[in-house]
Amino acid sequence: MATNNISHVDVLIIGAGPAGLMAATWMARCGINARIIDKRGTKIFNGQADGLQCRTLEIFDSFDFADRVWKESNHMLEVCLWNPDSEGRLRRSDRIPDTIPGISRFQEVVLHQGRIERFFLDSLKQHSNIRVERGVLPDKLTFDETKSDDPNEYPIEVVLQHLSEDQVNPGQNQTTVDGGATSDGLFRSNMAPDDTDELLNNAHKNGLAGRSEIVKAKYMIGCDGAHSWTRRQLGYKLEGEQTDYIWGVLDIIPITNFPDIRMRCTIHSASSGSVMVIPRENKLVRLYIQITTTEKGAKIERSAINPKMILEAAQRTMAPYKLDYEYCDWWTAYQIGQRVASNFSKNERIFLAGDAVHTHSPKAGQGMNVSMQDTYNLGWKIAAVLNGTANRSILKTYQSERRRIAQDLIAFDHKLSRLFSGRPAKDVMDEAGISMDEFKDALEKGNLFTSGVAVNYGASAIVAKEGDAAEQGDGTDVAQNITVRVTGKENLASNIKIGMRMPSFKVLNQSDARPWHFQERLKSDGRWRIVVFAGDISNDVQMSRITTLGQELHDLVQKFTPETKAIDSVIEVLMIHSAPRVQIELLDLPDIFHPWSKRDGYDYSKIYVDDMSYHEGHGKAYEGYGVNEKKGCVVVLRPDQYVSWIGELEDIGEMERFFIGFMVMGR
Amino acid sequence: MATNNISHVDVLIIGAGPAGLMAATWMARCGINARIIDKRGTKIFNGQADGLQCRTLEIFDSFDFADRVWKESNHMLEVCLWNPDSEGRLRRSDRIPDTIPGISRFQEVVLHQGRIERFFLDSLKQHSNIRVERGVLPDKLTFDETKSDDPNEYPIEVVLQHLSEDQVNPGQNQTTVDGGATSDGLFRSNMAPDDTDELLNNAHKNGLAGRSEIVKAKYMIGCDGAHSWTRRQLGYKLEGEQTDYIWGVLDIIPITNFPDIRMRCTIHSASSGSVMVIPRENKLVRLYIQITTTEKGAKIERSAINPKMILEAAQRTMAPYKLDYEYCDWWTAYQIGQRVASNFSKNERIFLAGDAVHTHSPKAGQGMNVSMQDTYNLGWKIAAVLNGTANRSILKTYQSERRRIAQDLIAFDHKLSRLFSGRPAKDVMDEAGISMDEFKDALEKGNLFTSGVAVNYGASAIVAKEGDAAEQGDGTDVAQNITVRVTGKENLASNIKIGMRMPSFKVLNQSDARPWHFQERLKSDGRWRIVVFAGDISNDVQMSRITTLGQELHDLVQKFTPETKAIDSVIEVLMIHSAPRVQIELLDLPDIFHPWSKRDGYDYSKIYVDDMSYHEGHGKAYEGYGVNEKKGCVVVLRPDQYVSWIGELEDIGEMERFFIGFMVMGR
Repeated sequence: MATNNISHVDVLIIGAGPAGLMAATWMARCGINARIIDKRGTKIFNGQADGLQCRTLEIFDSFDFADRVWKESNHMLEVCLWNPDSEGRLRRSDRIPDTIPGISRFQEVVLHQGRIERFFLDSLKQHSNIRVERGVLPDKLTFDETKSDDPNEYPIEVVLQHLSEDQVNPGQNQTTVDGGATSDGLFRSNMAPDDTDELLNNAHKNGLAGRSEIVKAKYMIGCDGAHSWTRRQLGYKLEGEQTDYIWGVLDIIPITNFPDIRMRCTIHSASSGSVMVIPRENKLVRLYIQITTTEKGAKIERSAINPKMILEAAQRTMAPYKLDYEYCDWWTAYQIGQRVASNFSKNERIFLAGDAVHTHSPKAGQGMNVSMQDTYNLGWKIAAVLNGTANRSILKTYQSERRRIAQDLIAFDHKLSRLFSGRPAKDVMDEAGISMDEFKDALEKGNLFTSGVAVNYGASAIVAKEGDAAEQGDGTDVAQNITVRVTGKENLASNIKIGMRMPSFKVLNQSDARPWHFQERLKSDGRWRIVVFAGDISNDVQMSRITTLGQELHDLVQKFTPETKAIDSVIEVLMIHSAPRVQIELLDLPDIFHPWSKRDGYDYSKIYVDDMSYHEGHGKAYEGYGVNEKKGCVVVLRPDQYVSWIGELEDIGEMERFFIGFMVMGR
Repeated sequence: MATNNISHVDVLIIGAGPAGLMAATWMARCGINARIIDKRGTKIFNGQADGLQCRTLEIFDSFDFADRVWKESNHMLEVCLWNPDSEGRLRRSDRIPDTIPGISRFQEVVLHQGRIERFFLDSLKQHSNIRVERGVLPDKLTFDETKSDDPNEYPIEVVLQHLSEDQVNPGQNQTTVDGGATSDGLFRSNMAPDDTDELLNNAHKNGLAGRSEIVKAKYMIGCDGAHSWTRRQLGYKLEGEQTDYIWGVLDIIPITNFPDIRMRCTIHSASSGSVMVIPRENKLVRLYIQITTTEKGAKIERSAINPKMILEAAQRTMAPYKLDYEYCDWWTAYQIGQRVASNFSKNERIFLAGDAVHTHSPKAGQGMNVSMQDTYNLGWKIAAVLNGTANRSILKTYQSERRRIAQDLIAFDHKLSRLFSGRPAKDVMDEAGISMDEFKDALEKGNLFTSGVAVNYGASAIVAKEGDAAEQGDGTDVAQNITVRVTGKENLASNIKIGMRMPSFKVLNQSDARPWHFQERLKSDGRWRIVVFAGDISNDVQMSRITTLGQELHDLVQKFTPETKAIDSVIEVLMIHSAPRVQIELLDLPDIFHPWSKRDGYDYSKIYVDDMSYHEGHGKAYEGYGVNEKKGCVVVLRPDQYVSWIGELEDIGEMERFFIGFMVMGR
């Protein structure tokens, strides 16, 4: 085997699904030297994950492609609950909003994974030289633990195998229209074995001289799915349990007289199982259809599962309504289980994310979302360490923050999927049955959880809040490593929660009166942000507080900014004031709010005002954020839009201590 | 010259600027066999037109690319008026909204013409095989008038010359940073001579054997600019006048302390001329700068005009504020004049559009907009005749509708540009000066005109309203050619005006509760639309009116639809009802509102409801349209969203007579 081909890379990403692509996207935006490999020869074209929660769309917007998703996707507005009446006849018993009104400027939408991957790929191309290398597998991992602590070392060595064209495209055929079982819909199902070893064996057998290489990496991210090769090399186990509930999935253009086929529906039949309806783009509808109705019982043979038998199960559940199709886009089946990995990282050098560290049922539409949010949490941290602006200590917060989320997710999924797979109770005395009231309640409460906006990261070096860091996370020690602990003053902004993502309200740009959702100004470019709620600066006293603050902020930001870089390149300072727009002249405010450059003159993108717009109403941002309109406050945001700290306009000393806790001084 | 190369095409478009591309886009969407040629070797990359009015964005949205413009463009929200105070010092005297609030779901934005052309090109590629053929010039036109009336004839013959690579790219250089006059900013200015003849002469001189071809066309559209070759072949004159006012244009990243540089501003200095500020994308600002201050006077030598002298004129006007730049993207100069062509068509076979038939000053941001709206008006008409759904008689409405608009435009521009070029009056006694109050008043009133939404087409075969057809248009005879004239009942919908574009309010899709701006459902695909305001169909009497109407509409639509085509392929029937959404089941409504197909089942995209949404408020569409919420009405829309007819639910006989007036029976 010719392996004299050795190269170095800062970040090696294994797997180019949504989690891997999200990681690569951060690297692209932060200018990091990274590679991303995938064993498959092409991206996927149909099926797989589809639901996109509102927090995920906010994240896409921070990378500037939420608009493409919003335009192409099907928007899900309402959930209709169907279950038996007292005579056992199926009827619509309830309607609830799919996304809780007011929690985000986006709502849940559905679009197949292949399109999402396309948007990531286009974005990578636009912003970097990073390209997915397909038909490339990791073959051998060597990790030198002694080199972990030195930021400049490459403790990871991976042998990569490059497959030939024949080897990378395994034999999944398109599903036949008549629903025959000739093609294998269970390809990539969790009921099918992994094919990594098989692919590797083929590669070795064919003796691919010169087709392997050695990569030395500073960091590695394993986004290689439920059968994760990376996880197996590290010897980490998935902990949890598997049930015998089997569900089938059909992506079809339905021919039906069921009235709510374009709504998300949960359908519990009296005794013929359950169906979930997920209306999709291009007239498609995804049906999740229960095939086995007991939690533990006789196993169904894999070969017995095909689109025809899945359709027949759906027809039984949805009777007396008719259901059929001429066009089937994709089908699969899966077994319900909830498991989470024991560790998410090895020495904060090798990380695991997505399906590699958590598996659960797909019906809450969480899979792709939580997986992408894993690497959305991780990517900027690795980039900050590599770019020399943050200490390695922040990397521990990845496991603390995301393993806790995974634990919460499987607990939620455990509960909901059992309520969904069970038979409805005939009446209150029917204890073996599931109460439909309890199901509805769980679904409504679950909507906040599944939206992703309820995520609340625990106290740590980068989240300056009260409470026990280990308890609020997964147990990892991520507490601030300083003598006098810094905690923000949450009472200054009743709707800005330290540890949660910054909410969004409309504000106007001071210079041109254009309305923006404030979140649109919080792009994912690796920068920290100090948001100054300047209050009513038409008042002289308040203006003089801001004048003082402006100078202090300039001095503080400068400390963390390399001399050769622009003043807003590491920490960006933004303002939202509450004075009437027309009473304020932008250039009267301190320089830090409108930095000057020789070529471009003043920067007009930093100052916003909470005032009436001409065409989009009044954003009422101060009211929405719960900030005092006279006095204001200051908020520190992480590069991923999560809130780190809140203080008074005079608390800059505290803020500086917070930054010193994990940041590298620039000069 | 080898011209044995003869081909046939249904539509030949000369010129691939915005007007030509708009025409080509219609052909692409309507499946018409068309070619589009342009003498230039590339599309333009900077400068030229930039303002996009809200009606233009509505049109772009009907072709599905308004979102790209909206995202990339600079949005202009406010106009600031600057003029001298009583001591002659420049100060901001007023602010007015740039787009009148409420008139459209879009507002005026600015993005350079090259990007607009890019979006058209991408759209052509996505929907057709039509590609711009560059470096191709028309050389000779022969028109056989006797063949005009036979729809199947090709009365047009054009010899085309294909230029070589060297010939197509004339010598315009990028502007130098120091503003020197080495490059020619006046390339394509109306102060520069046309280069078509020169290009043709070169081609002939170099003897391009085999590089010419003959094209026989059914229709031809000349979108070849102010110096239009097509117009010259037809011998049509531009009528109107030219002034000696010369204005310069600079596209720069300004370095300035002028407070409103990111607002649209009109600046009148006491005696140093006027400047208009147009903030653009990518930090650019366009300045229109007055160079000569008298209407008739000594000519400035073309060679004396360069960026430095234009900048100095701006500095004088904007003093005491400072203005400079390091980066200049483009510059030009132009002479103000207002002219309109005597004819817009030759026998309704050869048409002229855009700058070829009207020229005016650019400061009202009308040029690109009105030009594109010309061919937006024309394209679907030609396509309908070619597709065999409409009679040739509708083609006369192009000149009637658009020449009238051009006449109104030059009258408006004449007034505004003189008010803008004049010196401000020192006081009420200063009769030679311009009243700033009068200027503000003209600007405010002009905002409705320039938005494009005030366009009101006159009575004709396709606009069933009261009044004299010739008087309401440009004088062309376009009256209905039937014994008993059909006119709609405007009183049934107080805010839907026959002859104007259909306004837009938010409604919900009945099947999935998703909010849409109703205009989003009126895509430019060549189809007529019957919009049934069904009223409160939770009431049994109203529901039975709709049941009857549904059957009648089915029969009517079928008459105009070829047997092999889907029932909604020529006329689409849509419904907006006012009953509570949850009280209506979609499948209880007549079939015409949810046509069925064997492969796709029911169509869920036709029925909308005026009800509360979960996340975007209540559209109040019935209130907005001014339609009775109980009784409803029926509205007929042209393929370009303009209103043709309004009637009661029982007036289907009248509606049929309207359609018979110009449509071809399908079976």
